[in-house]
Amino acid sequence: MITLGELADRYQLQLRGDAQLQLFGICTLTPGKPGHLGFLSNPHYRSQLAETRAAAVILGAQDAESHDGPCLIARDPYLAFARVAAAFAPAEAFDQGIHPSAVVDPGAQIAASACIAPQAVIAAGAVIGERVYVGPGCSIGREVVVGADSRLEARVTLEDRVQVGARVRINPGAVIGSRGFGLARGEAGWEEVPQMGSVIIGDQVEIGANTSIDRGAIENTVIGFGAKIDNQVQIAHNVSIGAHTAIAACVGVAGSAKIGARCLIGGGAGISGHLEIGDEVMIMGFTMVTKSLAGPGQYGSGVPAQPVREWRRQIARSRRLEQLEIRLKKLETAMKPEQES
Amino acid sequence: MITLGELADRYQLQLRGDAQLQLFGICTLTPGKPGHLGFLSNPHYRSQLAETRAAAVILGAQDAESHDGPCLIARDPYLAFARVAAAFAPAEAFDQGIHPSAVVDPGAQIAASACIAPQAVIAAGAVIGERVYVGPGCSIGREVVVGADSRLEARVTLEDRVQVGARVRINPGAVIGSRGFGLARGEAGWEEVPQMGSVIIGDQVEIGANTSIDRGAIENTVIGFGAKIDNQVQIAHNVSIGAHTAIAACVGVAGSAKIGARCLIGGGAGISGHLEIGDEVMIMGFTMVTKSLAGPGQYGSGVPAQPVREWRRQIARSRRLEQLEIRLKKLETAMKPEQES
Amino acid sequence: MITLGELADRYQLQLRGDAQLQLFGICTLTPGKPGHLGFLSNPHYRSQLAETRAAAVILGAQDAESHDGPCLIARDPYLAFARVAAAFAPAEAFDQGIHPSAVVDPGAQIAASACIAPQAVIAAGAVIGERVYVGPGCSIGREVVVGADSRLEARVTLEDRVQVGARVRINPGAVIGSRGFGLARGEAGWEEVPQMGSVIIGDQVEIGANTSIDRGAIENTVIGFGAKIDNQVQIAHNVSIGAHTAIAACVGVAGSAKIGARCLIGGGAGISGHLEIGDEVMIMGFTMVTKSLAGPGQYGSGVPAQPVREWRRQIARSRRLEQLEIRLKKLETAMKPEQES
Repeated sequence: MITLGELADRYQLQLRGDAQLQLFGICTLTPGKPGHLGFLSNPHYRSQLAETRAAAVILGAQDAESHDGPCLIARDPYLAFARVAAAFAPAEAFDQGIHPSAVVDPGAQIAASACIAPQAVIAAGAVIGERVYVGPGCSIGREVVVGADSRLEARVTLEDRVQVGARVRINPGAVIGSRGFGLARGEAGWEEVPQMGSVIIGDQVEIGANTSIDRGAIENTVIGFGAKIDNQVQIAHNVSIGAHTAIAACVGVAGSAKIGARCLIGGGAGISGHLEIGDEVMIMGFTMVTKSLAGPGQYGSGVPAQPVREWRRQIARSRRLEQLEIRLKKLETAMKPEQES
Repeated sequence: MITLGELADRYQLQLRGDAQLQLFGICTLTPGKPGHLGFLSNPHYRSQLAETRAAAVILGAQDAESHDGPCLIARDPYLAFARVAAAFAPAEAFDQGIHPSAVVDPGAQIAASACIAPQAVIAAGAVIGERVYVGPGCSIGREVVVGADSRLEARVTLEDRVQVGARVRINPGAVIGSRGFGLARGEAGWEEVPQMGSVIIGDQVEIGANTSIDRGAIENTVIGFGAKIDNQVQIAHNVSIGAHTAIAACVGVAGSAKIGARCLIGGGAGISGHLEIGDEVMIMGFTMVTKSLAGPGQYGSGVPAQPVREWRRQIARSRRLEQLEIRLKKLETAMKPEQES
Repeated sequence: MITLGELADRYQLQLRGDAQLQLFGICTLTPGKPGHLGFLSNPHYRSQLAETRAAAVILGAQDAESHDGPCLIARDPYLAFARVAAAFAPAEAFDQGIHPSAVVDPGAQIAASACIAPQAVIAAGAVIGERVYVGPGCSIGREVVVGADSRLEARVTLEDRVQVGARVRINPGAVIGSRGFGLARGEAGWEEVPQMGSVIIGDQVEIGANTSIDRGAIENTVIGFGAKIDNQVQIAHNVSIGAHTAIAACVGVAGSAKIGARCLIGGGAGISGHLEIGDEVMIMGFTMVTKSLAGPGQYGSGVPAQPVREWRRQIARSRRLEQLEIRLKKLETAMKPEQES
C-alpha cells in the first residue's frame, strides 16, 4: 500500500486530491478497480475517464482539466505510469547461489551475488557478474560474459563467447550466438562457412522469447545499448542494431544489415541483407525492406486486408495493369491528331 | 488389430463389405497399404480411390456409390478418420511420479497421477493436476496451475502465475507468460512497463512448438476454450482469443487485439494491436490486418507469386499508377468539350 | 599459424607472393588485419581491395590482375574462403561419454565415442551414433536415431521416432517431430487427428535455431540430403524438401507441400499446403506461394518499402483501380463512334 501523496513525491508528479488516499495496486480505466490507480495516456480512451472505478488516475494536464477525481498530473502519463507501476510490481527476487542441480564448470566464474537456477549449465571460462539471474535450464557456453544485474529467464541459450552487457533481460527460449547461415556451394553440395565471430549485446538490451541472434562470420553481430527486441525475431550474422532501436515481434533481419539508432521496426517486417538503415527510421509492420533507407523517415509497404471477394478482384485488376496502360496509350494516340488538327 | 465391423460399431459408421476384415493400421490412399484403412475426404484426391492398395476406405456417401471395395461410410469422413485413427495411434502413456532428476519445490503440489519427467523444474506454489504430463526439461514458474489431463511436451516454459486449463496440449519449446513488450520512452532511453498480468489458457487448447504468448500488462492475456494455435505463433500481451478459434503457423498478433470465437487465421498473417475481430472471421494466409473486422466474413491481402520478371514489371507498373491517373484525367478533360459540343 | 604456401597446397589454390608468409587467422577486407587473410568474392566490395590491411587475400583471377599484394587465386573465392577459414576455426571438440547429470534410459544405445552433455535426456530405444554430440539440455525421444558425426547443439528437441542422418547439425532450440496441426471439426469443437508419422532427416542437413518441423500425420515429413534450413523456419506435417534445397529464416511451409531439389527459398516466404515446387526454383524473400510452381524458375511477390506518405497513396490508388477501368472504358466507348465516323 502506498498513498497518492507518496507517489507524487517519489515520481515528482503534480498531486490533485487527497494525499492520504491509499492505493493497493494499478488497474485499467475500464472498469477500474476501487483502491487502485488507473492511467490515461492514449486519447482514444479519454471517454473511459468519466466512468472508471479507479480510486485515482495518472493523466496529462489537458485531460486533468475535465476530470475532477483525485489524480497525478504528468508531462508524460505513460512514462509516469511505467514508473509508478514498478512500485507495485512484485520484485523479481531470487536466492543467491548455485542450485545443486545446476552444472557449473569449475573453470567458470560466478559472482557470489548471482543466482544459478536449477538445471542450468555453465561451461568453462564463463563469467557471470554480480546479481545476475540465470534461469532454469539455461545453457551458457564457453567464455560467455554476462554483465551485472542482467536476467536470463528460463531456457535461454548463450553459445560460446557471447558477450552480454549489464542490466540486460533475455526472455525464455531465446538463442544467442547460434551458427550464422553461411554456406558456399561446393561440387557436392553446400559447404559450411565457419562462423568465427560472436554476438556482443550492449547494456540495457531486452531480447524476446524464442528470438534468435546468430554469431558473426568473421566479425561480430552487435546489438547496441538499450535496444529492445521483441519475441520471435530473427537477427542474422553480422547484423548491427543501433542504440535504443526497438524491434517488434516476428521481424527478420538478414545478414550484414546495419540498422541505425532510435529506429522503430514494426512487427513482421523483413529486412534484406547488406543494406543500411539510418537513424530514427520508422518501418511499419509487414514492410519488406530491400534497399538502404535514409533516416530519419517512415517507410511502409504492407497491403491492408479486404473482404476476400474484393481482394481477389483487386489482384486480378492489378494483373490487368499492363493492358490498362496499353489501352490508355491507344486512346492517347487516337486523340492526338484530333487535338492537333 | 481391429475388424472393420468393430470400427463401424464403435464410431457409428455405415459398414459396407466384410465385417470380419482385419485392419492393422491406417494409410494414405496412394499407394495405400494392404491390411490398412485409408480415407477420402478431399474431393481433389477422388481419382486415387480406384487404385489404392488400402484394404478398406472411409469415405462419404457420394463417393461410396462409385466405389465397390469394403468401406465405412461417414457423414464427415475426415472427422471419422480422426477418430478411427486414434484407435490405432500409440497411446501417450507415461509413468506416474516425479523423476529423481526433476527439481520440484517443496511448496509445489503435484497430483499423484501426474508425471514429472527428467530435468523438469517446478517452482513454489505450482499446482499440477491429475494425470498431467510435464515433459523433459519443462520449466514451471511460481503459482502456475495446470489442469487435469493436460500435456506439456518437452522443454515448455510456463512463467509465474500462468493458468492452464484441463486437457490442454502445449508443444515443445513453447513459452507462455513471458514479459509483454511494454516500453515507455524516458529521457535516457526505453523504460520497462511492468507486466503484472498473466496468461489464462482455457480447457482443450493446443499450443504449437516454439510459440510465444506474453503475459498481460495489467490484466491477462486470454486463450479461449478449445482454441488451437500452431507453431511459431506470437501472441502479445493482453490479446484475447475466442473459443474454438484456430491460428495457423507463423501468425503474429499484436498487443490488446481481441479475436472472436470460431475464427480461422491463415499462416503468416499479421494482426495489429488494439483492434477487434468478430466471431467466425476467416483470414487468409499472409494477410495484414490493421483495422477491426466484423464477423462473420473472409478477408485477404496477400499477393500471389509471379515469375520474377513479371513481378518486377508489376511493381514498376503499380508505381506508375499516379501517372496513369493523371494521363486518364487529361484525356477525360480533352474529351469533354468535344462531347458537349 | 599457417603459411600462405601451406594453404595454397592444401586447398589447391594458385599462390602469388611469399609462400613463407605467416597467417594467424582470417579477416574482413575492411579494415583488414595485419597477419590475417581476407577474401574478395562479391564484386560490390572490389574497391576495398586497395586499402585493406590484410596480409594476403583470396580472390578470383580477374581481380588478381589489378592487385599486386600476396594472394591465393581461386576459381570460386567464396568456396575457397569457406575451406581455408575452417583451417583457422576453433575445433568443435567435446569430451566423449555421458555427463553424470544427463538422464539416459538404460534402453538407449549410445556410441562410446558420442558425447551426451549435461542435463540432456535420452529416452528408451534411442540410438546415438559414433562421434555424435548431444548438447546441454537436449531432449531425445523414444526410438530416435541420430547418425554418426551429427551435432545437436544446446536444447534441441527430437520427439519420438525421429530419424536424423549422419553429419547433420541442428541448432539450439529447434524442435523436430512435434505434433502436426491436424484437426477435424467435431460437434463440440476441434478434435485432434492423430499424427502417427515421423520426421526423416537426410545426411548433411542443417536445421536452424528455434526452427520447428512437425511429424507427419500418416506418412513422414522428409528433409532431403544436404538441405539447409535457417532459423525460425516452420515446416508442417508431411512436407518434403528435396536434396540441397536452402531455406532462409522465417519461412513457413504448410502441410503436404513438396519442394524440389536445389531450390532457394528467400527469407519470410510462405508456401501453402498441398502444392508442388519443382527442382531449382528460386523464391524471393517475402513471396507468397499459393500454387504449384514449375522448375527451374524464379518467382516473387513482395512489395518493396516506400516512404509512408507515398505508400499510403499507393494503397489508395490501387483501390481506385476499379474506377480507373470504368473511366477508361467510358472514354473508349466515347471515342469509338468518332473513330469510326
